[in-house]
Amino acid sequence: MSRPLGEIVDALGGTRHGAPDLVIHRLAPVATATPGDLAFVQTRYASQIETTAASALIVPPALEAQALSRGACIVADDPYLYFARLTQWWRRQHDPAPAPTIDPLASIHPSARLDDGVSVGPFAVVGRDVHLARGVRVGAHVVLGAGVQIGEDTVLHPRVTVGDQCVMGERCTVHSGAVIGADGFGFAPHEGEWVKIEQLGSVRIGNDVDIGANTCIDRGALGDTVIEDGVKLDNLIQIGHNVRIGKHTAMAGCAAVAGSAVIGARCTIGGRASILGHLTLGDGVHISALSNVTRSIQKPGHYTGFFPIDDNASWEKNAVSLKQLNRMRERLKAAELAIEQAFKNNSKP
Amino acid sequence: MSRPLGEIVDALGGTRHGAPDLVIHRLAPVATATPGDLAFVQTRYASQIETTAASALIVPPALEAQALSRGACIVADDPYLYFARLTQWWRRQHDPAPAPTIDPLASIHPSARLDDGVSVGPFAVVGRDVHLARGVRVGAHVVLGAGVQIGEDTVLHPRVTVGDQCVMGERCTVHSGAVIGADGFGFAPHEGEWVKIEQLGSVRIGNDVDIGANTCIDRGALGDTVIEDGVKLDNLIQIGHNVRIGKHTAMAGCAAVAGSAVIGARCTIGGRASILGHLTLGDGVHISALSNVTRSIQKPGHYTGFFPIDDNASWEKNAVSLKQLNRMRERLKAAELAIEQAFKNNSKP
Amino acid sequence: MSRPLGEIVDALGGTRHGAPDLVIHRLAPVATATPGDLAFVQTRYASQIETTAASALIVPPALEAQALSRGACIVADDPYLYFARLTQWWRRQHDPAPAPTIDPLASIHPSARLDDGVSVGPFAVVGRDVHLARGVRVGAHVVLGAGVQIGEDTVLHPRVTVGDQCVMGERCTVHSGAVIGADGFGFAPHEGEWVKIEQLGSVRIGNDVDIGANTCIDRGALGDTVIEDGVKLDNLIQIGHNVRIGKHTAMAGCAAVAGSAVIGARCTIGGRASILGHLTLGDGVHISALSNVTRSIQKPGHYTGFFPIDDNASWEKNAVSLKQLNRMRERLKAAELAIEQAFKNNSKP
Repeated sequence: MSRPLGEIVDALGGTRHGAPDLVIHRLAPVATATPGDLAFVQTRYASQIETTAASALIVPPALEAQALSRGACIVADDPYLYFARLTQWWRRQHDPAPAPTIDPLASIHPSARLDDGVSVGPFAVVGRDVHLARGVRVGAHVVLGAGVQIGEDTVLHPRVTVGDQCVMGERCTVHSGAVIGADGFGFAPHEGEWVKIEQLGSVRIGNDVDIGANTCIDRGALGDTVIEDGVKLDNLIQIGHNVRIGKHTAMAGCAAVAGSAVIGARCTIGGRASILGHLTLGDGVHISALSNVTRSIQKPGHYTGFFPIDDNASWEKNAVSLKQLNRMRERLKAAELAIEQAFKNNSKP
Repeated sequence: MSRPLGEIVDALGGTRHGAPDLVIHRLAPVATATPGDLAFVQTRYASQIETTAASALIVPPALEAQALSRGACIVADDPYLYFARLTQWWRRQHDPAPAPTIDPLASIHPSARLDDGVSVGPFAVVGRDVHLARGVRVGAHVVLGAGVQIGEDTVLHPRVTVGDQCVMGERCTVHSGAVIGADGFGFAPHEGEWVKIEQLGSVRIGNDVDIGANTCIDRGALGDTVIEDGVKLDNLIQIGHNVRIGKHTAMAGCAAVAGSAVIGARCTIGGRASILGHLTLGDGVHISALSNVTRSIQKPGHYTGFFPIDDNASWEKNAVSLKQLNRMRERLKAAELAIEQAFKNNSKP
Repeated sequence: MSRPLGEIVDALGGTRHGAPDLVIHRLAPVATATPGDLAFVQTRYASQIETTAASALIVPPALEAQALSRGACIVADDPYLYFARLTQWWRRQHDPAPAPTIDPLASIHPSARLDDGVSVGPFAVVGRDVHLARGVRVGAHVVLGAGVQIGEDTVLHPRVTVGDQCVMGERCTVHSGAVIGADGFGFAPHEGEWVKIEQLGSVRIGNDVDIGANTCIDRGALGDTVIEDGVKLDNLIQIGHNVRIGKHTAMAGCAAVAGSAVIGARCTIGGRASILGHLTLGDGVHISALSNVTRSIQKPGHYTGFFPIDDNASWEKNAVSLKQLNRMRERLKAAELAIEQAFKNNSKP
């Protein structure tokens, strides 16, 4: 697995300084790179240029002179973006997608329509009236319910489940164990028991959506659950019924969105953040990891709320005091009044 | 997919106002309903009657006159309950369960007993000595370990795993990816390492239990993990070994219950709430979403504990102060004493 | 399922008091044991010796006389450790591993190498160039990607997925639904959208590692994600890309570790605890359940941070006050200054 520096620049652009036949064996983080590696450096980490052992660097124009003084480099406007595209190119060079095949051990309903270039892995189940567009890759053990539609070039890794009637766009990637279209959690209370509300809606997923391992996206109760174009969901995320997530919003691992919440476009939701049901988040709202969103937020900005960690003994004392916080506030107010009164008395003639 | 209003009332009861042949095309939330839709209105949302575009409404007796003044309606004592039953009826009308079949691609141990009307999907694995009662539906890719028993009319969606010897009652629904009967997390420490405690118990699940996608219920260490009748569990929930959950308790997504906790009947546990191990919750305890239960709670009521969200700058200031909260309390007490002392001195003769 | 007391001591050691042919029918917790049961008692629970109905007890030397006075017992230096080993022996006696078989319904690539004594269950998929060492047991529906290597006697329960090129050591146990080697969550922002960073690394897992149901361990972006020997992970845990977890560290259910965090050896991470990305935890750091680790911690010790639960009305008041905590601190300081000033004035000549 190696490629000459010149071939990389021919494919991805940028300005090359250094021999075109310098062989790159690996892409690596700049901090741990060794000879043979290509790494990238962002402007704010310029000092890494002096300390890295990488054979070549991707740097922004501002660091060009500094990088040149130590050796080979590629100059690109946005080194991180360049590096992202490089990882994609590297993968295609070294691990190209296999030729499409329909595994004879798959179970494909005769009514399913598979366009050209579709792959289906062993033990996959493709249900009644499913449509798989050109280039779709269905991994081993994937289960696609009746009427599912998958857009061009979408990749379903092994062991993804998509429930009846759910629709997914083009160029999506879904990782193993994800469950799309299980029932939302809906029950009416009746005499101390629960009566199920059948979940009659579906899930509609746009283009260029990534869904992580073991993430769950429930179908809508009446209308649909909607994930718009470009949304990125990490692992073990819960998306409740009738949620809508706007374009290019990203959520890190273990985030959760309760039913009927509406999240705007280009939001970021940190790991293990939670959003309660029926709330609305506007566009460009950024929620820190671990935070609990319990009210709607329209104003773009950065929001946080979690208990800071401490050594256990300190936490115990503070946690006890926390339960008296409102009482402390009242006591503080009383003390302030007493002080004010004392000053008044003192200033009497 | 449509049904006349009269047929709905014939099937489900209630008092009909409006033509029996009024065609209902869809069930919809009242807020977004359009002509052709049937929606329900609860007493506290009476104003929605004036604004909805639904063709017909389900209303309580108190809203009968108001609903009549705008058009067709069904009067029912509990519109939400009526609506829940209507969704079930609607599903049966439009998407009836297929005739039971044993897929030839399933792997069924010769010792397994399958009663009448059992369905088994492709690539399902039915182990040694399994018993599937009348009407059980086993989805594609379900794995049932040795000795598993499933009660009448229970539905296991594709890709559910039930470990050896686990028992499930009647009319349960289990969603994709759920794992019932994996080992509990038990290890004895020994010289800085961990020695596994084999998990010799099982999981026993009652009737009418719903289990969400990718939820895990561990088997007991010695005794069994027990889920009583009517319990409803949402997605991505963790139930540790030897937990007992009482009848008709409901838990929302991402809740977690650590080992040996005992939860009473008719509790509600909000999304992402956590219950530590070996605790006891009495009947009728309601835990807010996101809350951490770290002590037993016997008294019925509503309990909460999570950090409120704020803009990040405010949170940072408050979080820093929180670490000094106990010290603040001591300082406040000192200030109060000083004030008290000052007043005493001032009031001296 | 029963064994005589003498046979247990012959197999596991310890000093037996009582008839060797006393029949033990069950291992049980001491609190709920009934006649026929064998239970263990630790020094600090000595009073349980008087109240239990167990037929025999495992006790430490310090409790030997007390245990003898009520009946049969086994004296062992560490009763909990003895009990752990007893559960393993009991399992082997009553539920021995079946003879190794390759199920004819498995899909095994012709290039895969299976050593002696390997089992492969129905519908398992063993990919190109996989190596399964002696005694490996691959459950039903397991999917092993290209180049996967599994060490001797490792057990993969049904429905585990291991991605391309991942490596696992000897004597590991992986529970159903676990996903090892899905892509890490890496995207470069570009004009309001996300450009995928291909995850070119892998996952390397040591010996004696246990991984719980539906737990996810992502592959590295460039280097590998590493789980060292003896690590124990419970269910529904998220391990981000390029994380490293040191030897014999244990994590309880729903814990999460974000990308590139490094956790030392012999740590314990409580249930639902979270560790943010790029942090370092030294050896012997213990994080309480539910706590949020948002800074590196080098010093061994016990750390905690979560909001304590309260009745909802009290919590609401305290949560409101919490948002004014920093303001309260400033007010307290002002009050202290006023008091100090007043004392100064009063003490003027």
